Amino acid sequence: MRQLYHLPISPACRKVRLVLAEKNIEFELVEERDWERRREFLMMNPAGEVPVLVEEDGEPLSGATAITEYLEEISPEVKLLPEDPRARAEVRRLVDWFDRKFEAEVSGGLIFEKVMRRFLGAHEGGGAPEMSVVRVALHNLRYHLDYICYLMEERNWLAGDALTLADITAAAHISCLDYVGDVPWNQYQGAKDWYAKIKSRPSFRGLLADHLPGMPPPKLYANLDF
Amino acid sequence: MRQLYHLPISPACRKVRLVLAEKNIEFELVEERDWERRREFLMMNPAGEVPVLVEEDGEPLSGATAITEYLEEISPEVKLLPEDPRARAEVRRLVDWFDRKFEAEVSGGLIFEKVMRRFLGAHEGGGAPEMSVVRVALHNLRYHLDYICYLMEERNWLAGDALTLADITAAAHISCLDYVGDVPWNQYQGAKDWYAKIKSRPSFRGLLADHLPGMPPPKLYANLDF
Repeated sequence: MRQLYHLPISPACRKVRLVLAEKNIEFELVEERDWERRREFLMMNPAGEVPVLVEEDGEPLSGATAITEYLEEISPEVKLLPEDPRARAEVRRLVDWFDRKFEAEVSGGLIFEKVMRRFLGAHEGGGAPEMSVVRVALHNLRYHLDYICYLMEERNWLAGDALTLADITAAAHISCLDYVGDVPWNQYQGAKDWYAKIKSRPSFRGLLADHLPGMPPPKLYANLDF
Repeated sequence: MRQLYHLPISPACRKVRLVLAEKNIEFELVEERDWERRREFLMMNPAGEVPVLVEEDGEPLSGATAITEYLEEISPEVKLLPEDPRARAEVRRLVDWFDRKFEAEVSGGLIFEKVMRRFLGAHEGGGAPEMSVVRVALHNLRYHLDYICYLMEERNWLAGDALTLADITAAAHISCLDYVGDVPWNQYQGAKDWYAKIKSRPSFRGLLADHLPGMPPPKLYANLDF
């Protein structure tokens, strides 16, 4: 069976998990604490980062963008990109928005401060969260929730009529923030309605079952009526 | 004619310029100082960043990844991605390596400190370069030049037998560093041979003609025998 080397509270890994599940591709999860720089893992991915998808013949594929585009190419029955080139560019614009802009302004800092620091040793940057970083990220989050509300005023899903990689990428990031209880859903109805719709899909079940040792999610994390 | 809103010393913009030129697509360059947050520009790209490609009918496409994948789809005569899905994943792994890892560890910091700070006002972060950032970036650059040498031991181009988006992405980043004279070419023969090969392509001519006011490139920047 395919194996996905991953970390649970990682937007890039969650994106790949959602794409695999939407496409009904079976896979096995293998947790990889990539900061430990295990030699066998570095030989699969010299960048030393999750996600890495190992195909049934043992070939490793690295990086969320490479893996998700690959899965779209080899498993086109369930489409996560539209056919029209300009519509595909709009999906990829939004994928980039969340993977680069949202990551830099919100999710990267929040996840490092509130999750990663618990697992790292003191000499690796472990310890208590730097609250100034958390505050800036939570401030920035509001602009992005506003943008989701704006997009959802005219669209069924973020990039248009159908669920695409744009929704999956956004949900992969936001679900990590939801795990630490940081999303002010009640002030952003359009974003909340969008997230309720994607959260209730069968592909989301694996994510909602995640449970970090010593750091359980808030009660509403797995609740479809949040 | 198509218009590309760009900045000269921007790896993302240079990548799009190289792809357009490799595919023999005519375009006009429009310089956009995106930090000024011009209203008409924000309406084209709410992320407020270059590159933005405006198609002949006026439709804007935003972001280097979305634009380059789009150009590959609408203009497949000159191919910059291979046909085989796994080979495409290898190209996209390397694209991500340079656009995310190299950007974070080398080019983002160097370009901001040595180029952007000259053009920003004091209240926007302008001023003299922070030399500690420059030193760390130059230190990190050596690992990446080593990695290019390693790849070139077994391959004609970074991702295999043919020129691909991986080479174009890497060259887009490294050419910006070369503009400020920061690449220790003579210690990395494999990387130098690779760069000499891509630098001598007709698609590179536009980049080699770039000249920032008040900040001319070093003599070897445009020299094919560097």
